[in-house]
Amino acid sequence: MAVYTEIPDEEFDAFMKSYDVGVVLSCKGIAEGVENSNFLVVTEAGQFILTLYEKRVAAADLPFFLGLMEHLAAKGINCPTPVHDREGKALKQLAGRPAAMVTFLSGMWVRRPQAEHCAAVGAALARLHLAGADFAITRKNALTVDGWRPLYEQCGGRADTVAPGLAAIIEDELGEAERSWPAALPRGVIHADLFPDNVFFLGGRLSGLIDFYFACTDMFAYDVAVCLNAWCFEVDGSLNVTKARALLTGYGSVRPLGDAEIDALPMLARGSALRFLLTRLYDWLTVPAGALVVPKDPLEYYRKLRFHRSVGDASAYGLSR
Amino acid sequence: MAVYTEIPDEEFDAFMKSYDVGVVLSCKGIAEGVENSNFLVVTEAGQFILTLYEKRVAAADLPFFLGLMEHLAAKGINCPTPVHDREGKALKQLAGRPAAMVTFLSGMWVRRPQAEHCAAVGAALARLHLAGADFAITRKNALTVDGWRPLYEQCGGRADTVAPGLAAIIEDELGEAERSWPAALPRGVIHADLFPDNVFFLGGRLSGLIDFYFACTDMFAYDVAVCLNAWCFEVDGSLNVTKARALLTGYGSVRPLGDAEIDALPMLARGSALRFLLTRLYDWLTVPAGALVVPKDPLEYYRKLRFHRSVGDASAYGLSR
Repeated sequence: MAVYTEIPDEEFDAFMKSYDVGVVLSCKGIAEGVENSNFLVVTEAGQFILTLYEKRVAAADLPFFLGLMEHLAAKGINCPTPVHDREGKALKQLAGRPAAMVTFLSGMWVRRPQAEHCAAVGAALARLHLAGADFAITRKNALTVDGWRPLYEQCGGRADTVAPGLAAIIEDELGEAERSWPAALPRGVIHADLFPDNVFFLGGRLSGLIDFYFACTDMFAYDVAVCLNAWCFEVDGSLNVTKARALLTGYGSVRPLGDAEIDALPMLARGSALRFLLTRLYDWLTVPAGALVVPKDPLEYYRKLRFHRSVGDASAYGLSR
Repeated sequence: MAVYTEIPDEEFDAFMKSYDVGVVLSCKGIAEGVENSNFLVVTEAGQFILTLYEKRVAAADLPFFLGLMEHLAAKGINCPTPVHDREGKALKQLAGRPAAMVTFLSGMWVRRPQAEHCAAVGAALARLHLAGADFAITRKNALTVDGWRPLYEQCGGRADTVAPGLAAIIEDELGEAERSWPAALPRGVIHADLFPDNVFFLGGRLSGLIDFYFACTDMFAYDVAVCLNAWCFEVDGSLNVTKARALLTGYGSVRPLGDAEIDALPMLARGSALRFLLTRLYDWLTVPAGALVVPKDPLEYYRKLRFHRSVGDASAYGLSR
C-alpha cells in the first residue's frame, strides 16, 4: 500500500488534458499495490486508475502488459483496459516515470475467500488462458526455476535468521526443482500473481481481474498452482481441500487439465510456494528503513511449501482423474 | 498515507446495508490522512469517504467533529457532510472502531500553492469562522499553549539529537508563549489544521475544505497564523510576503481582523510554529519500527519559528493597518 511519487500540479494537468476524458474532478492515491503508485482519477467521463510505474517494473515490459490487457479485454475478459490519449498513445510519461491510465473496474476483493470464490477464480483463470492463446507478444517468466537460485543468492545466506532450518529446506527445494521442473506442458499467457487482492467480486459474482504486471509466457498449470497456494490455504497453514477441489473443478470446467498437467501439479505447487517464499524472504531481509510497505511474511509460504513436500500426488488437492 | 485497519467482508457488507445508498460497487483504501483509515466507497448513489477513527482521535470528540461538519455544510461551507444511516445515526462502529461515512468532495489539493490559492484559502477560512459562530458545542484546543510543555516533556530531552541547539530554542519559546500568549481575542470554531492537503481546488477555484479532526474552540487569529505557516513559506524556509499578504487580504475581505488580532499575529505565528514543531518532533522521536507513515520533518517548523522570532510586527507579513 503506497504512493511513491508525488505528481507536480502543472504536470498532472497537462497529462490529463492529453486525454479525451473531460474535466478532472478528483485524484486520490490508492493504498493498494506494492510495486507501483496508483491513483483513482474521477473525471466527467468516469473513473480511471492512473499508474506510475516505479523501478521494479521494467519499462521494456510495459508494451507487453498494456497490450495484453487490451487483448484480453477485446476477448471479453473483464480487466482494466488502457486508455489512449488524443494521439493514440497508451504508454506515456508522468513525473519522470512511465505512466498509463486504465479503465476502472467495479468490485471488491474478498478478504476471506470461500469455496465458491475459489471455483469462480478457477474458471476465470482458465478463460484468461484461452483468451490469451493468440496474443502475439511473449515475455519470459523472470521468476521461474532458473531465476530462483540467483534470487536466493541475493539473500546472502541469511535465511536461517528468519527461521532456523530454512536455508537447508530452500537449498533442497532448489535442487529438486532444477532436476524435476516440468518442461513439456501446455503454455501460453499466464497471470502469475492471481492472489485474492487481484480478483474483484460484486454481489457474489467475479467482476474482474487486475494487476497484470507479473504476466508472462509460461505453463498454464503453473498459474493454477499459484492460485492453489494463494486461495486454498487456511490462516493456520493447512490446505482446505474443499477450496482446492472447487478451484481445480472450476478451472477444469472451462479448460480441462491434461494428465501430464495433473501429474505435475505437486511439483508445480512446490515450485510456486518456493517462488513466493524467496521473493518474500528477499523483501524481508532487504526492507529499507522508512519503507512505506510492510513486507509480507515469508514463513506463510514456508508452511505451504512444507505441506506440498508431504504430498504424494494431485489427489491431495481433491483432484480425482 | 495509510490504511491501518482491514475490514472483514461480512462486517463491511452489513455496515453498508445500514445506509440507503444502493449497491456498493467499489471500496478502496486511500493513501492520504495520517491519523485515520480512509476508504473511497463508490455505490449506486455516488461516492463517499468512509473513515475508521484510529486511536489518536478521541471517541468523545467525534460528536463535535461530525456535528460541526453538518453545521458548516448547512451554512453553505463546502465540506464533507456526514451520511445518516436508516436509523438516523451518523457515528457508528466498524471493525471495532468508531466509523462514519461522509459525502465525497470534488477537487484536488495543490502541491505548490500560489498567491491566488492563498487568497482563496484566507477568504474560505474567514467564511468558516463566521459560519461556525452559532455552533452549539465547544471543544478545548488540546494543542494550545498549556499543552505544549507536557508534549515537549514527552520528547524526553532528546530535541538536540534532531538539531543541535533545538532544545534551548524550544525552552525559550515555551517560556515566552506562557508569558505572552494572548487571551482576549475573538474566539469561536477554528479548523486548526488547514494545510494545503485539506483544501481542494477545481478549475482554479476553491471547491472545499476537509479534515476537521483538529477543529476546536479557540482564537480566530490563531487559525490565521496556522495558515500563514502552512501556505506562505517557500521550500527554502523563507516567507513569501506576496502570499502572506494575499492570505491576510483574502481573510480580511470576509472578516476584517481587529487591531488587537493584528498586533498579536507575530506571537500567534510563533506559537503555531512551535505547536507543529513539537508534534512533529514528538512523532519523529517516537516513530515505531515498521510504521506506515514517514514522519514529517520537524526542522521545517524550526526554520519557520526562527523567522517569526525575527519579526517586529505584523507588517512583516505584508499587512498594513
